[in-house]
Amino acid sequence: MPKILESIVTTRGADDQTHIAPMGVHCLDRRLLLKPFRPSQTLENLQREGCAVVNRPDDIRVYAGCLTGRYEWPLTSAEIVPCQRLENCLSHAEVEVESFDDDPIRPTFTCKIVHETVHAPFQGYNRAQAAVIELAILVSRLGRLPDEKIRGEIEYLEIAIEKTAGEIELEAWNWLMERVHEHFAPKEAAS
Amino acid sequence: MPKILESIVTTRGADDQTHIAPMGVHCLDRRLLLKPFRPSQTLENLQREGCAVVNRPDDIRVYAGCLTGRYEWPLTSAEIVPCQRLENCLSHAEVEVESFDDDPIRPTFTCKIVHETVHAPFQGYNRAQAAVIELAILVSRLGRLPDEKIRGEIEYLEIAIEKTAGEIELEAWNWLMERVHEHFAPKEAAS
Repeated sequence: MPKILESIVTTRGADDQTHIAPMGVHCLDRRLLLKPFRPSQTLENLQREGCAVVNRPDDIRVYAGCLTGRYEWPLTSAEIVPCQRLENCLSHAEVEVESFDDDPIRPTFTCKIVHETVHAPFQGYNRAQAAVIELAILVSRLGRLPDEKIRGEIEYLEIAIEKTAGEIELEAWNWLMERVHEHFAPKEAAS
Repeated sequence: MPKILESIVTTRGADDQTHIAPMGVHCLDRRLLLKPFRPSQTLENLQREGCAVVNRPDDIRVYAGCLTGRYEWPLTSAEIVPCQRLENCLSHAEVEVESFDDDPIRPTFTCKIVHETVHAPFQGYNRAQAAVIELAILVSRLGRLPDEKIRGEIEYLEIAIEKTAGEIELEAWNWLMERVHEHFAPKEAAS
């Protein structure tokens, strides 16, 4: 059973632009498995470049931002692979593709960590950050999950936000909630 | 609105034994606020010693272990304050008490970080670790929350465990679920 670590994957595009994507990275036998959906920019970039950076920021706005059209996060060059990384993250791992397992929905790139650096100390678990991750997943499935389920889960997640969020977590939560309100607004106007 | 960071606080007892306690540490204006309940060993130790270590392990079994009678985690000396810290943690902060705000239920120690060290890279957010934290909170409130609420929340949290846990997270989850089963067993036997 591989452990899944929510990370921000950066890859280099054919136009030399850096692509930023939140991804659940599978960790298995000291390898990181990247499983981008087909079609996706991350998939194309990984196939062409054979490398990526797995970034682990604790600014939860990066995760919420990537789901709400906010991609302008400061970047800097990675140390070994020809790709950029997030400037602000707790740690990053530079990876090279070792093997590729194709799949019509979700191919797997098995990657070796060629370099890993720590930039700042982990501050402990924040329940609000975890709630933002869960809301991000809900937002990515709006329209595919029953509305009642979405409302119920948000009500549950809000407790951790109210009790444990700092300003950054509140901002990230509000970006995602705007998407939720946009989703529900036409239905509420019709009812 | 202070951000709350779930951490493992170690303090030195009058008998020189190290006391380990999971605690939601409040982070405000570059200070860490420790708010132990009254009565508690952490409160007594903080009052007597005036220092502590805030440990941030990513081995989620430490959190689950402290709630299920498993306190035997490897310790080593802190660098500045006369107290021990967890040997295995991503980072730790050594703190000294600056001021004390008494309260009949939950006094506040405002602490200054006098030393902070990173030991290992943060690996990214793991939804199963967050679920273990939430289950730990439920377990600490067994008997005070309605049983139906507990069952419902566990059913929700199990999804993240099934999808994203590694072996360590599963073990921590199972320790806590033993407590849940012990809580429900007499009622189920009676029904």
